[in-house]
Amino acid sequence: MYDKVYQGLGQALKTDFYELTMSAAYFQNNIDTLTTFELFIRKLPDNRSYLVFAGLEQVIEYLLNLRFTKKEILFLKRMPTFKYVKRDFFDYLRDFRFNGDLWSVPEGTIVFENEPIIRVTANIIEAQIIETFILSMINFQTLVATKASRVVYAAKGKPVIDFGSRRAHGPEAGILAARASYIGGCIGTSNVYAGYKFGIPVYGTAAHSYTMAFDSELESFKKYYDTFPETTVLLIDTYDIEEGARNAVKIGQSLKGVRIDSDNIIEKSKKVRRILDKAGLHNAKILGSGDLNEYKIDKILKEKAPVDMFGVGTEMVTSRDDPALGGVYKLVEQITDDGIKYRAKFSIEKATYPGKKQIFRRYDNNGMMKEDILTLANAKKPQGTEPLLKNYIKNGKLMKKLPELSQIRNTTVRNLKKLPNKYKNLYKVVHFRVKISPELKRLFRKLQNLYT
Amino acid sequence: MYDKVYQGLGQALKTDFYELTMSAAYFQNNIDTLTTFELFIRKLPDNRSYLVFAGLEQVIEYLLNLRFTKKEILFLKRMPTFKYVKRDFFDYLRDFRFNGDLWSVPEGTIVFENEPIIRVTANIIEAQIIETFILSMINFQTLVATKASRVVYAAKGKPVIDFGSRRAHGPEAGILAARASYIGGCIGTSNVYAGYKFGIPVYGTAAHSYTMAFDSELESFKKYYDTFPETTVLLIDTYDIEEGARNAVKIGQSLKGVRIDSDNIIEKSKKVRRILDKAGLHNAKILGSGDLNEYKIDKILKEKAPVDMFGVGTEMVTSRDDPALGGVYKLVEQITDDGIKYRAKFSIEKATYPGKKQIFRRYDNNGMMKEDILTLANAKKPQGTEPLLKNYIKNGKLMKKLPELSQIRNTTVRNLKKLPNKYKNLYKVVHFRVKISPELKRLFRKLQNLYT
Repeated sequence: MYDKVYQGLGQALKTDFYELTMSAAYFQNNIDTLTTFELFIRKLPDNRSYLVFAGLEQVIEYLLNLRFTKKEILFLKRMPTFKYVKRDFFDYLRDFRFNGDLWSVPEGTIVFENEPIIRVTANIIEAQIIETFILSMINFQTLVATKASRVVYAAKGKPVIDFGSRRAHGPEAGILAARASYIGGCIGTSNVYAGYKFGIPVYGTAAHSYTMAFDSELESFKKYYDTFPETTVLLIDTYDIEEGARNAVKIGQSLKGVRIDSDNIIEKSKKVRRILDKAGLHNAKILGSGDLNEYKIDKILKEKAPVDMFGVGTEMVTSRDDPALGGVYKLVEQITDDGIKYRAKFSIEKATYPGKKQIFRRYDNNGMMKEDILTLANAKKPQGTEPLLKNYIKNGKLMKKLPELSQIRNTTVRNLKKLPNKYKNLYKVVHFRVKISPELKRLFRKLQNLYT
Repeated sequence: MYDKVYQGLGQALKTDFYELTMSAAYFQNNIDTLTTFELFIRKLPDNRSYLVFAGLEQVIEYLLNLRFTKKEILFLKRMPTFKYVKRDFFDYLRDFRFNGDLWSVPEGTIVFENEPIIRVTANIIEAQIIETFILSMINFQTLVATKASRVVYAAKGKPVIDFGSRRAHGPEAGILAARASYIGGCIGTSNVYAGYKFGIPVYGTAAHSYTMAFDSELESFKKYYDTFPETTVLLIDTYDIEEGARNAVKIGQSLKGVRIDSDNIIEKSKKVRRILDKAGLHNAKILGSGDLNEYKIDKILKEKAPVDMFGVGTEMVTSRDDPALGGVYKLVEQITDDGIKYRAKFSIEKATYPGKKQIFRRYDNNGMMKEDILTLANAKKPQGTEPLLKNYIKNGKLMKKLPELSQIRNTTVRNLKKLPNKYKNLYKVVHFRVKISPELKRLFRKLQNLYT
């Protein structure tokens, strides 16, 4: 009953121009080495001790369907920068396909800074052109899935719904944020398209303008209830909130709930609960909304405000307290005529480890996450650990059936249960141990001596 | 040579579900009053004293092409929430068109908080369904155009290029950010799609991985220059930056420039400039990049670092220091059988003025912006002022030829020249005077007495 967002044509030019200029230089100089890039996050956002990985499905669809259309190639041909580039480069683009390999951790995996969470091995041009799209997709969805997991954690089992579309960074960002926040543990979204395309449960109440469009609040409530007799949640703070609650209870026992979209929700929810209870509407829920985030929800629940569900928007879909994830995509290995060349960066702040890598995760006796070990990809599995990176695409072909979105969400929930609570603290960062294997350290030092 | 991003089908479900539930309630209760909503920004982002309005073209394309497909309607019909909604509501959606009126300030207009910058008059359902899309488009593009104008102002005439796609909130956000930052005064973008779709000038250099893909830095530079003999800008800080500069000058006099993508750009650019000048490459430019924003650029130029152009990414496309614009869309007027009903909100923090409004702008004798006057739309033009809101769509039909993007950019540049510099201060907020006309104040007080 739903399609995917990224199918068909029209994605190839969603890239930085330098990916194409570099590609032309590679092509013209017959550089077509098999190259490996790894994507990792250098620094976690403020207050975060972990990340929830998301966005892989859109990356895979992009890689499987990546083509340049005739019109796009014509556009490139006419760019002044490409004036001296030989025309066979454009023939190459016409036949361009991603024929490489993609390894990745599954969506919903808990990951940490400097871990290689995606690994691409392909002809250098193929590996380069896809950089921008992959980064923007993974950076954003991982940012929001992570933020959402914090909001959901703060809500302590009370449902959280994404209400952020109107403040997201454009219509597509709203849809992707709905997907990512569902992966992060929300129960659904207000975005209808996200329901249509991804099968995410869709929720909606009404706006203040709805109430204002009628002559009286009570009339507006009654008309809404007539239309949705089994699912009515009424917004009660257009005028006076206690009056609103008293009007709402006139709907009767089958009212599902009320929404409060105001500051001061702690005090107001307590008053509203008393009015609902007094009228016998013990089952009517209170949905809170209005610039909520994990910190406010934590406070609301600590002060025992009777809010049963949370609608969270702006703060979650923009990850407002730290709105950009600094994912990078770095060259780590090339196969040339002279054999494997490992690539690394040696600067003190920005060192990157060379070679294709694997992450092995160790759990303690209670099944709780204990440490990760970063090794070369072909290293032997350290005893009692699990490899995190899986092979999704091989020679351009999909190797695994992708999970349903609800399964991904379950994966997140399950993984977060295995993450000790100290890493989920909303206010304090605790570093998870990521060990570098002795072989990897040796290789790094060897290269360092060679190049610096 | 380029298409528009938003054409054709597939936009209708990009809305919050409550827009559709409210619509069903209106439809079922025969409420089809002619309704006016206004969009305004309640609070400017931190440190901003003005906004650069952007995103209108995409809103207009959306309104002119808005349709529900059969498949989308089938999806809605099957939603449990709509179980009791009469089937003729879905027939209504099948034939749905936006037949209303759109008034807006032109893109590139300087606007302030609480000014109605978009006004929609339409059947209440039409006016309601479009809320989410309009808000997300205008909120995001206006946020980024404003941020870009600050970055461009800090750069004091030196060109600024958008490099932000990989950190934008998904691929579409990167494209919209390229458009908005061009409107805000950037000279171009690294995003190829933004060039293809919007005709924005596209720029690109090379990445560190490019240099690393060759056996030596010098070889990588020579091969790049062979491919792009007229436009080569070399990234010189993959290994040692001074060595990189010395390798770059070996390219000779036709080298266009070098890029420095490191911390400590002030000190490094001075060293690099000396190396370039010593080799006689006085015309080779230095392009600076790497987590730049208006504050860092201001510092770079105050310390007289010889940086000639700036590539700005993450900070600009996410408006990182304040990443969400709180635009709202409020009911201000309804035409019912009993005549005009004005709608307003009276809460102290969130008061909104009633009625269709117009903004009149007054300039001083030097042509500089002096004050705005908010009036009812049908009020007489105050002497010596200009109305800002224009009629773009009437009864669903486009009333004006839309300007080219380069013209919009010129509009911004021209408007910013008329804005006194004190409002452009990067660090200090200065409030521009927005007067409320006596008639509007009277109407507000009259309603206040009536309703509170």
